[in-house]
Amino acid sequence: MSQSTSSAYTAAGVNLDAADEAKRLIGDAVRLTHGPQVLGGLGGFGGLFAIGDLPEREPVLVSSIDGVGTKLKIAFALDLHESVGADLVAHCVNDILVCGARPLFFLDYLALGVMNPTQVGAVVRGVAAGCRAVGCALIGGETAAMPGFYPVGEYDLAGCIVGVVARERIITGAAIQAGDVVIGIPSAGLHTNGYSLARRVFAEDDLHTPVAELGGCSLGDELLQPHLCYFDAVWPVLEVGLATGMAHITGGGLVDNLPRVLPDGLAITLDAATWEILPIFRLIQRQGNVSWDEMMRVFNLGLGFVLCCRPQDAGAVLALAGAMRARRVGVVRTHQDGEALVRVENLPVA
Amino acid sequence: MSQSTSSAYTAAGVNLDAADEAKRLIGDAVRLTHGPQVLGGLGGFGGLFAIGDLPEREPVLVSSIDGVGTKLKIAFALDLHESVGADLVAHCVNDILVCGARPLFFLDYLALGVMNPTQVGAVVRGVAAGCRAVGCALIGGETAAMPGFYPVGEYDLAGCIVGVVARERIITGAAIQAGDVVIGIPSAGLHTNGYSLARRVFAEDDLHTPVAELGGCSLGDELLQPHLCYFDAVWPVLEVGLATGMAHITGGGLVDNLPRVLPDGLAITLDAATWEILPIFRLIQRQGNVSWDEMMRVFNLGLGFVLCCRPQDAGAVLALAGAMRARRVGVVRTHQDGEALVRVENLPVA
Repeated sequence: MSQSTSSAYTAAGVNLDAADEAKRLIGDAVRLTHGPQVLGGLGGFGGLFAIGDLPEREPVLVSSIDGVGTKLKIAFALDLHESVGADLVAHCVNDILVCGARPLFFLDYLALGVMNPTQVGAVVRGVAAGCRAVGCALIGGETAAMPGFYPVGEYDLAGCIVGVVARERIITGAAIQAGDVVIGIPSAGLHTNGYSLARRVFAEDDLHTPVAELGGCSLGDELLQPHLCYFDAVWPVLEVGLATGMAHITGGGLVDNLPRVLPDGLAITLDAATWEILPIFRLIQRQGNVSWDEMMRVFNLGLGFVLCCRPQDAGAVLALAGAMRARRVGVVRTHQDGEALVRVENLPVA
Repeated sequence: MSQSTSSAYTAAGVNLDAADEAKRLIGDAVRLTHGPQVLGGLGGFGGLFAIGDLPEREPVLVSSIDGVGTKLKIAFALDLHESVGADLVAHCVNDILVCGARPLFFLDYLALGVMNPTQVGAVVRGVAAGCRAVGCALIGGETAAMPGFYPVGEYDLAGCIVGVVARERIITGAAIQAGDVVIGIPSAGLHTNGYSLARRVFAEDDLHTPVAELGGCSLGDELLQPHLCYFDAVWPVLEVGLATGMAHITGGGLVDNLPRVLPDGLAITLDAATWEILPIFRLIQRQGNVSWDEMMRVFNLGLGFVLCCRPQDAGAVLALAGAMRARRVGVVRTHQDGEALVRVENLPVA
């Protein structure tokens, strides 16, 4: 039964034919992410993923759900919709990587004011590309037309990842000890955090102007830089069991995310002179007159992923994760009463 | 490091302290859903669920992601936020039940214009209650403040479920044969589908007025009726292996959802005189002057879940699923060239 375009439901803003067209456009990209563990085709009520042959001993599923946040407003302003799909996957992959897990499968949720097959195709191709890059199957998704919720051309995007880790290899941070070295891996920009603040500092008209301080890159392109996926750099470290604890630097920045995995009685000192505080952060700080203390809490400031290891393993970890320019950024020490859990030395002077 | 309320990030509309307060409010409700398979506490980067002891042979994970759709606008208008959380879980549970799966765990995504701990608490309590009712663990969630995306007091809500089924017990509909009986289980109303159309038919001012045709219930209360969860009714049927195919009646109604599981060469005839087309659907049809053909495609029309079985098993199925008033509603037959895959007899005359 095909729906007439003059039907009452179309008049209410929901176009089921456009939804079918969108499904057709994304089918190929989605199927390319499927390996032998994915059973059945597209269009079923549930996505099927066989786990009878998982190599992990006492397997534990690790899952995370997240959105892209107000970075989407940059994508709307530039009419570029593929990179945010990959951003979403990278964010979720990093979140479960912190627990020691490798990705198995992903599902995305895309809610639009008006079903636009081209736009949906771009977003989901980005999701599929992010999945393929880490061997993750995209096995489900919901694309919902929600007239009255989102303006024409705008949408919200969220996704859920499920991965797996052997029980004995779960990383919680409990193994972190005083004296451990803190290794940081650079970010490519804001990733998906702090955009509400960034958007308040800059005017939308600024997005298209090249900025000398950003190497001539426009502010919009800079703010749409990808959320890096740290799987390829970190997985080799996990395979040889050298990480004692890890943190994905997202909302809350370095000072709120590192304590999430730090055992009681320990603290971290970071040396901000050891990594590059990217120009975009200096620009936001100066133009918005934001204190560096707050900058530290809202943004990743140039470090997207942090892992701790024993001092004697630091060389090996740096070699294994070297392709993503990992470097020593700090040290774990005993926590003294009343001091901050994360102290950052050599921050720029505002 | 606690955030000052005069910080730049707060001025940008993001209040991290309110986010912490919301987390505190939902912690207890969430923990009540956790059994021994859930490892670790709240606040980790990923939710951990141990699957080393699954009783299913060759286990296959079945997952689904979905939202509540524009039913949320009714929740906003009535300022009632708990039932939509349970609606979301019921929708997802039903989607994987169709494949024969039982739920393992759930994650929710809640995006708000402004972080409101009371509202977040109500929504997530509803999600947690829906999870508890079916023994599903709520192991993750993202609550995102997205100023500029949602008006104050409004939000979008989505969720992802992961369940499991033994490979040999996956139900795809391939076992359906001509002569199978079609059993329907009543819905409680629109569930989560067709709200964009319903909201066009009624004015927001109508929501608080009692309607005689709805038994004196107000239109708002009627439109907020729960999305029923069919797990308790259907699971006993699956345990004895009597269902040949199932469909959850969501967007697309009976005519689009039943063909999703119907093998080539088969069609279904339903008799609309065998179940109650709920008064709310008659009201929408009349007041919106919507054809019954379109009503069939947009709404569940009073049947929320349908399963097929061999004629000799129909009595047993009706007994097992009887608590939810399951009844015979149709039959599977050979498909004739050119006819509809789903024919509905005895529809009301418009």
